[in-house]
Amino acid sequence: MTIVSFFKRASQSLHGSSSHSKLLLLFAVSSGGAVAYADSKQELVRSPDEVNQTELKKKKVVVLGTGWGGISFLKDLDVSAYDVHVISPRNYFAFTPLLPSVTCGTVEARSIAEPVRNIIRKRNGKISFCEAECVKIDATNNKVFCKANFENNVIGSGEFSLEYDYLVVAVGAQVNTFNTPGVKENCHFLKDLEDAQKLRKSVIDCFEKSVLPNLTEEERRTHLHFVVVGGGPTGVEFAAELHDFLQEDIVGIYPTVKDLVKITLVQSGDHILNMFDNRISAFAEMKFQRDGIDVKTGCRVLSVSDKEIAMKMKSNGEVYSVPHGLVVWSTGISTRPVVIDFMEQIGQANRRVLATDEWLRVKECENVYAIGDCATIYQRKIREDIEAIFKAADKDNSGTLTVEEFQDVVDDILVRYPQVEHYLRHKHLRHVTDLLKDPEGHDRKEVDIEGFKQALAQVDSLSKTLPATAQVASQQGTYLSKCFNHMDKSKNNPEGPRRFSASGRHRFLPFQYKHLGQFAPLGGEQAAAELPGDWVSMGHSTQWLWYSVYASKQVSWRTRVLVVSDWTRRFIFGRDSSRI
Amino acid sequence: MTIVSFFKRASQSLHGSSSHSKLLLLFAVSSGGAVAYADSKQELVRSPDEVNQTELKKKKVVVLGTGWGGISFLKDLDVSAYDVHVISPRNYFAFTPLLPSVTCGTVEARSIAEPVRNIIRKRNGKISFCEAECVKIDATNNKVFCKANFENNVIGSGEFSLEYDYLVVAVGAQVNTFNTPGVKENCHFLKDLEDAQKLRKSVIDCFEKSVLPNLTEEERRTHLHFVVVGGGPTGVEFAAELHDFLQEDIVGIYPTVKDLVKITLVQSGDHILNMFDNRISAFAEMKFQRDGIDVKTGCRVLSVSDKEIAMKMKSNGEVYSVPHGLVVWSTGISTRPVVIDFMEQIGQANRRVLATDEWLRVKECENVYAIGDCATIYQRKIREDIEAIFKAADKDNSGTLTVEEFQDVVDDILVRYPQVEHYLRHKHLRHVTDLLKDPEGHDRKEVDIEGFKQALAQVDSLSKTLPATAQVASQQGTYLSKCFNHMDKSKNNPEGPRRFSASGRHRFLPFQYKHLGQFAPLGGEQAAAELPGDWVSMGHSTQWLWYSVYASKQVSWRTRVLVVSDWTRRFIFGRDSSRI
Repeated sequence: MTIVSFFKRASQSLHGSSSHSKLLLLFAVSSGGAVAYADSKQELVRSPDEVNQTELKKKKVVVLGTGWGGISFLKDLDVSAYDVHVISPRNYFAFTPLLPSVTCGTVEARSIAEPVRNIIRKRNGKISFCEAECVKIDATNNKVFCKANFENNVIGSGEFSLEYDYLVVAVGAQVNTFNTPGVKENCHFLKDLEDAQKLRKSVIDCFEKSVLPNLTEEERRTHLHFVVVGGGPTGVEFAAELHDFLQEDIVGIYPTVKDLVKITLVQSGDHILNMFDNRISAFAEMKFQRDGIDVKTGCRVLSVSDKEIAMKMKSNGEVYSVPHGLVVWSTGISTRPVVIDFMEQIGQANRRVLATDEWLRVKECENVYAIGDCATIYQRKIREDIEAIFKAADKDNSGTLTVEEFQDVVDDILVRYPQVEHYLRHKHLRHVTDLLKDPEGHDRKEVDIEGFKQALAQVDSLSKTLPATAQVASQQGTYLSKCFNHMDKSKNNPEGPRRFSASGRHRFLPFQYKHLGQFAPLGGEQAAAELPGDWVSMGHSTQWLWYSVYASKQVSWRTRVLVVSDWTRRFIFGRDSSRI
Repeated sequence: MTIVSFFKRASQSLHGSSSHSKLLLLFAVSSGGAVAYADSKQELVRSPDEVNQTELKKKKVVVLGTGWGGISFLKDLDVSAYDVHVISPRNYFAFTPLLPSVTCGTVEARSIAEPVRNIIRKRNGKISFCEAECVKIDATNNKVFCKANFENNVIGSGEFSLEYDYLVVAVGAQVNTFNTPGVKENCHFLKDLEDAQKLRKSVIDCFEKSVLPNLTEEERRTHLHFVVVGGGPTGVEFAAELHDFLQEDIVGIYPTVKDLVKITLVQSGDHILNMFDNRISAFAEMKFQRDGIDVKTGCRVLSVSDKEIAMKMKSNGEVYSVPHGLVVWSTGISTRPVVIDFMEQIGQANRRVLATDEWLRVKECENVYAIGDCATIYQRKIREDIEAIFKAADKDNSGTLTVEEFQDVVDDILVRYPQVEHYLRHKHLRHVTDLLKDPEGHDRKEVDIEGFKQALAQVDSLSKTLPATAQVASQQGTYLSKCFNHMDKSKNNPEGPRRFSASGRHRFLPFQYKHLGQFAPLGGEQAAAELPGDWVSMGHSTQWLWYSVYASKQVSWRTRVLVVSDWTRRFIFGRDSSRI
């Protein structure tokens, strides 16, 4: 089955299953609070019996997080079939790919934030939301413990717990400092909107500091030395934004110090944007060189103080310190404490990231799902099942597999083990039966178990870990909502591939990621893009593609209008330099 | 001379005197820093002699503050004639009348902020700006001491001093807590943009807190009890905005608690908006009553804790406490510490507000001017000069004043003592010579000194203190810039009225305030306005007048476009409830 047909099938079932039973937001809370909450809802006139009958049948779904994963899940979930509760420390969804644009005022913070309650309202308000942070998942008792995180004036402790039938963990990840001393205290990050707003203020602060009287030129230069650690898309885009800001706006408003600005981009690998095609890395490095951005590749940061950053060049082992005005740390992600604690409970203590199966279910935890940056899919190896596959395919128990017998199970294999398709593409094989050819490339009529094992021996090496991107999280959320929408139907009509190690079929198709491409804006109205089918595009036209894709991907018409008007405003009036 | 002719004359002189000599921003700092500053400007290729000759002639004007007063002064000042330095802790000008609109997201904070450096750039960059706070004015040595106020990472102490030839104090005022216990710690204010942003977050917080589980209805009500202290235009407008927010947006996004919200407006006087016409007060009180806003007049706040606010009813002396979710304190202003310290230096220690003469010069301090909320004009009483006036008018030294003799000095009197005009209007007298009529209202041919004193005895009681509004500060700034622009010309051609107590004329016309009206938005697309000529206007059409006046009064096209697009956005999409 191809990806397209999977989506077609899933989409049909989705439309077929829309029922409109009513949902009350009661029982959202643990027993103590239920009474109080019910109190405040006396306007909903229903007999208690009616409420109980409708509600008690519904399974309670608790969603942790309102990022890409959580919001995609909520947008497509059939909320009439579940009692849905969302917990997140932020009452808005942020369009994170535009965070670097916020740091220099190209786009306003509010333009890329959509209030969660607006999203909920569009679902007819059948979802309960609490602005709180989940501090513990108790998998044994199917409970989460939460804490509201307000600055002051909260009545009571702000702590509460919530039981669940299904839990969707979409809490995202946190910044990874790799235990580098001083990073936490002295660096800026670019994980969420508040980071971006803080960074914007600090950038303006650096310029205001640099024009204070009684400073030497060297001191002014220090204030205006911006260091970006991490040559990934976020770091590169921030450096590009900063350079644009300098070229287009700073020159006019801080004319006396415009020549003292320096941007340094530190990357531990040999190239920046190394997750992209080589051509893009080279293009970016060339453009940055032309722009005067100092790209230091093969350079590791040892420590960061409030005044200096210490680095080590990998090539010659040289260690040196440079004074800085501001350091942005954008090197990678690590697991959140609440997830680490959860992993310890369920026997995943030795892993670095929470593992799920291909259906996004947390391993060893049937009713907990995890999507987005907080989890990774453990793809089952084909070699673990190879004998079962052979046995299932060898219908006549002849001990050998004919091409015809193999073809009967090929569709199920391709769905269950997507690495097979990657392997075929990698080896430039046209058809999956080409796998059965002998090592010299001649057709074989049949293979025995050893030949079969040999034919698939290299396949598992092509298993890919999905990148920690918005695209992956978003597709996972959408996929999971469809599974939830088919929960009842799929019990009797399983949709998934054949089980080789047992009888019957899997209940759902496993999650399959469809890469739609990736952008890297490089400043000066230029961008690079890697598009599906190994297409690479660079330059001004790509920037316009970037504008149109990012405008269309906004979660609401409101943010779409705001983002486009911000872009327009920047073209007309430039960026705002107020320190607000 | 009428107000119109004064402005016409001033405007003509302004256009006549525009010279275009070049200005360097050097010498902006005390000796130590001058070298460093010069270092960073090597791109300006001029011989040192040339620089010295041009610069040393120019008087150095230091402006403290970038609010209404400071910015109006800068906008019209002939910057080619002075070496201008601006010091302000904020690098932007905020359109303060729209602050209440920011608190609920009707208008975005950045839409009403114009970067000072944008304003400077429009003046061809001939103004130096430092983001710092003036901490001490040393009037004896013509010096101000400043401190840059950045959170971290400032090289050196951030302190510097600046000498001046002329100083313009436009630092504004601070909130007046009347020493009420707990106000500073537990109340929100509405003095600047940061206050408004903080308040916006807190309003959303209150709603998020109120829907947390495990709360009683009473506790939810507490979180949603908003108390506004002060029935002036700011307090009233905030209450109205909050009510609109509730009606238009909250109902949809927090449906479960919408009926628990309560707004209380506490006013110590007998009526809210008591600086407006009675009809407006009554209209506002009626509208608020209809809207369910609890207006408590004749009520004094005794203390505020994080949970409760204690009040005393003036009528019966009853004291009681009510729990609150949030208190906004908007009762009045007091003098900033730096101004109090300055007043002590110049012998004004016993005054509450810094006093200037009618030319906005600080009393006893020839080269220091003060405008806006930080100062008040001490209007000279006519009775102090009455004998000098009589003597000057009595040309023939007859000991009596004829109507003709009086008419000769009338113009000068009207300009020098504006209270005379207020008195005429108050008494419904058509012409100033009507003052000379005898107590029964009959014309007199001439009066002696006693008769003259009697005729003008009541005039001084009509001296008015100007309100602490944006309008006053703005007009003062513009007036002062015109005086500065005429500084040389007026030395030989004084523009002001005749000096009665000495010979000759005053160098400039004294400042005269022209009241252009005042608005009070009341929510629900209704507003009240007091327009010149004692016109009063209320209702929906007034709100549209408000929209057009406030759009037109924006300091730049940029903010104008932003504010109008914010209004449009609110009409289409409603207000944003994200807690950013």
